[in-house]
Amino acid sequence: MKKRPLILVTNDDGITAPGLRTLISIMKKIGDVVVVAPDKPQSAMGHAITVNSTLYCTPYKNGQEHDEYSCSGTPADCVKLAVREILPRVPDICVSGINHGSNSSINVIYSGTMSAAVEAGIEGIPAIGFSLCDYSWDANFEPIRNFVETITREALENGIPKGVVLNVNFPKLPENEIKGIKVCRQAKANWVEEFDKRTNPMGKDYYWLTGKFVNLDKGEDTDEWALEHGYVSVVPVQFDLTAHHSIQDLNTWNLND
Amino acid sequence: MKKRPLILVTNDDGITAPGLRTLISIMKKIGDVVVVAPDKPQSAMGHAITVNSTLYCTPYKNGQEHDEYSCSGTPADCVKLAVREILPRVPDICVSGINHGSNSSINVIYSGTMSAAVEAGIEGIPAIGFSLCDYSWDANFEPIRNFVETITREALENGIPKGVVLNVNFPKLPENEIKGIKVCRQAKANWVEEFDKRTNPMGKDYYWLTGKFVNLDKGEDTDEWALEHGYVSVVPVQFDLTAHHSIQDLNTWNLND
Repeated sequence: MKKRPLILVTNDDGITAPGLRTLISIMKKIGDVVVVAPDKPQSAMGHAITVNSTLYCTPYKNGQEHDEYSCSGTPADCVKLAVREILPRVPDICVSGINHGSNSSINVIYSGTMSAAVEAGIEGIPAIGFSLCDYSWDANFEPIRNFVETITREALENGIPKGVVLNVNFPKLPENEIKGIKVCRQAKANWVEEFDKRTNPMGKDYYWLTGKFVNLDKGEDTDEWALEHGYVSVVPVQFDLTAHHSIQDLNTWNLND
Repeated sequence: MKKRPLILVTNDDGITAPGLRTLISIMKKIGDVVVVAPDKPQSAMGHAITVNSTLYCTPYKNGQEHDEYSCSGTPADCVKLAVREILPRVPDICVSGINHGSNSSINVIYSGTMSAAVEAGIEGIPAIGFSLCDYSWDANFEPIRNFVETITREALENGIPKGVVLNVNFPKLPENEIKGIKVCRQAKANWVEEFDKRTNPMGKDYYWLTGKFVNLDKGEDTDEWALEHGYVSVVPVQFDLTAHHSIQDLNTWNLND
């Protein structure tokens, strides 16, 4: 019998989040689970790390037999700490989520869920971020359990391509209405921000960030298209950010005259 | 005569940083400058944005005739606020920095300096992040003034390719020892973290993140190679993170059986 894989589980909504709890219960079917997750919500943290401050990481007891640790840092901190200080060996896979809310399209850039996956990827660990397109704390994760399990097992079986992590998003639908899983590209969409300007009791102006998501990308190979049409989207995400196709173009500039 | 360009200047070391002051003085030679920068250092913030908290943005008076604003948020917040609430029109270019310390190679992922440039890029604004490989607060920015000006003028002249922002790093060298400017790819390097584990006065363990930068990429077309050999590195950075070359590969998985 093949050895059970060692699975690192983390997220950005914090160690008490129902999405994390669901992910843990799915991963326990597949392998040995260690959880290192933030002690508080860390949404929209992007790829922040804690360089000028201390980090606390303490066992989190909730009566389960697997290992759980609560960390004062960001999702990327959790992965770094898990790999260097907590895990007995390099894990076979790192899964992050299940996020309460979408991380499709440009949201991957702001996503704490994906920053944990990317951090694992940078360290050479196969990694997947899972997100459900439902922001509510009591979102229903039951319909997507089988899909999470299938994708994780396939990733362990086939190996994720080098230099790549997976960004998986689920539509908010009953299980029998989810049409299947599609490998996609990131849609070219963005947030059109608006700021709600208010005045505090001391008379000073402040702002709340609001905005609406605008997708002008009509491609049928995008994550947004897949989600809108009832599919689970899987986008391979890279962390070599070089726009290789632009190097030629930039070499026509007069930079050394 | 061509209209003077409108230039948005920001950074991640905060509005008082000498690197920002240098960048402002260079940009005033080129166009009309508006500064919206964090009110405190925001290093290693990645692409964080402030979604669950308030933002303050107040005029910053330092006796200069150009406009400056100090913002309580992250570098990405500064760009969003500048574009929506402060600037009279969409700026012709956004420049971020000059960072006190390197943002070459994988550091681009953790960089607040680059997150401001990327945020501008997402909004369709040409953008450049500048970083000097010297972490000290009293770093000498004089040797790189002419290079910053050349690169910015070339970007305004030629236009930065769509979907791309520039990550520019400078070696810590006297001006006459800098050999020129090279367009590069991001080196495949990473941080090998170590955590310094300590015990606080209350007896509780905590960690400080430390680590060393390891570059195993021997390519002579990388930013690390350029910097080591006395060149300024210019890496075109994209924010479509899709690993397009991996889609084919993932389509061989059994995801829908």
